[in-house]
Amino acid sequence: MWSTISTWPFSLQAVEKASQILAAGGNAVDAAEQGIHLVESDPKVDSVARGGWLNAKGELELDAAMMHGGTLRVGCVAAVKGFEHPVTIARAVMEKSKHNILVGTGAEEFADKCGIERADEDRLIMPAARKLYEENLKKLEEEQEIVGHDTIGLIALDQSGNIVSATSTSGASMKTPGRVGDSPIIGSGFYAMNGAGACVATGLGEDIMRTCCSHRTVALMEAGLSPQEAADKVIYSATRAIIDAGYHCDCMAIVCMNGKGEIGASCNHQGFTYTYAHEGQEPTSVVVTPIIDIGGIPNETKHTC
Amino acid sequence: MWSTISTWPFSLQAVEKASQILAAGGNAVDAAEQGIHLVESDPKVDSVARGGWLNAKGELELDAAMMHGGTLRVGCVAAVKGFEHPVTIARAVMEKSKHNILVGTGAEEFADKCGIERADEDRLIMPAARKLYEENLKKLEEEQEIVGHDTIGLIALDQSGNIVSATSTSGASMKTPGRVGDSPIIGSGFYAMNGAGACVATGLGEDIMRTCCSHRTVALMEAGLSPQEAADKVIYSATRAIIDAGYHCDCMAIVCMNGKGEIGASCNHQGFTYTYAHEGQEPTSVVVTPIIDIGGIPNETKHTC
Repeated sequence: MWSTISTWPFSLQAVEKASQILAAGGNAVDAAEQGIHLVESDPKVDSVARGGWLNAKGELELDAAMMHGGTLRVGCVAAVKGFEHPVTIARAVMEKSKHNILVGTGAEEFADKCGIERADEDRLIMPAARKLYEENLKKLEEEQEIVGHDTIGLIALDQSGNIVSATSTSGASMKTPGRVGDSPIIGSGFYAMNGAGACVATGLGEDIMRTCCSHRTVALMEAGLSPQEAADKVIYSATRAIIDAGYHCDCMAIVCMNGKGEIGASCNHQGFTYTYAHEGQEPTSVVVTPIIDIGGIPNETKHTC
Repeated sequence: MWSTISTWPFSLQAVEKASQILAAGGNAVDAAEQGIHLVESDPKVDSVARGGWLNAKGELELDAAMMHGGTLRVGCVAAVKGFEHPVTIARAVMEKSKHNILVGTGAEEFADKCGIERADEDRLIMPAARKLYEENLKKLEEEQEIVGHDTIGLIALDQSGNIVSATSTSGASMKTPGRVGDSPIIGSGFYAMNGAGACVATGLGEDIMRTCCSHRTVALMEAGLSPQEAADKVIYSATRAIIDAGYHCDCMAIVCMNGKGEIGASCNHQGFTYTYAHEGQEPTSVVVTPIIDIGGIPNETKHTC
């Protein structure tokens, strides 16, 4: 038995690739990495690696992570420039480094030592991203809102029972250089523990991490809740906690899977879609109805999804 | 009613300072920041800011964080060079940035914009740290173990009922440049939520973060466990999870406090001491008996405390 789930419709290609690997008896680490590679290389996906959104200095700064639920080993990289596959650097940190998290030039130098290929700016930064950056600079001058913060988060459960979560993102559009979102932060953007399950998140990282959404979801599944019950409970309480504290709550969405390969997904806004597949089920995308909708809640300011 | 607790005997001066501020009706943010300042500036504390351990390139790279349990706002900085008070940059991120985490030069540029004073190398790096670095370089050549990874983590509960957690560390001695430990990672090195409580961690960050020790502890206190029960349960299960997965488990210790100001502390090794004070109780240091002792458990390799 194998199962995989990932965020957003653009992850269809990743879920297809991961499914092929898992169905053939491959391991969850390879499935997650090779699935995410396709999205990282796709210049049409504007929030992940190649083709992704630029920071406030017009640079492409990438975050990624991977966690193995059987060993609890983890690898995270943040604020990495000049690579097409940050998830591969994250995997290398998980498998080859004595550390779990490397950021900035330290992560880039580690990638070089591991023989991971660099990519030049012409390949990584698309004309559309540069055009959007110029438009956003004008918006900033006019104090208009800047929109954009999506992540590919993928969970893979292989036939050996190992569950792996992985993420990759360019982070928020026009972010301050050096900004790190939830995607490479364990317990916030991702978590995995064999038996209990795994979770990955997408949305505004600053809000997702306030209540450690991914770890909270896995802990609830560990306590016996179904993935859907856990996901709904976490998104509802995370959204309420922020609003009840008197702050604007932005978009949050999670997908999760328990140790049996059963899945759940929840969000606090319209338009979130996940993609999944398991033994006997072709890759399929599903639109999620929000358990709580920030579009309909009086909020400090308009949300920026 | 007010209460404060912090890691290690070197935090006595921080707990004294925080106590004065809290007793006078000051807020928990000021108490945590000003308490930690004394330890950051103390050149004799070899694991926090000024006087701290150097990385593998002989640089002093600092991590710090702060979280407000009432607002769930959080500020984290990592891999910051050239500042004496990284906790003040973390506070500025929490209070002034739209982001939660800034790393490397991005964090340093943000600190400059906030008017936070830089410090030069001669003030920050002590001759003892340079000497240790040279000795460690030789040890690395001889493939000997490198020892050292402590953090000041401080919790303050003020008379308004707001609970704040904060951390500051130079990170592991001889770490790879760009390495980030648990101290600036929400849910791992620190967490705070009014009502439920707060937690901070010290020890090897790579192991602490595998089970999100700080978030897990606060979640257990939220579920009704006493701080001591929660702390013991988290340290025991975190240590067992790593060893049961077949890996070496290193030192971990946490201190926590619930919304009533009651405290707990737990560790998996000999020698951990915390310092605390509350209304009617002078600052006092207490040695903790390990709930599980990695020194007495067959482990993959010798632990490196």
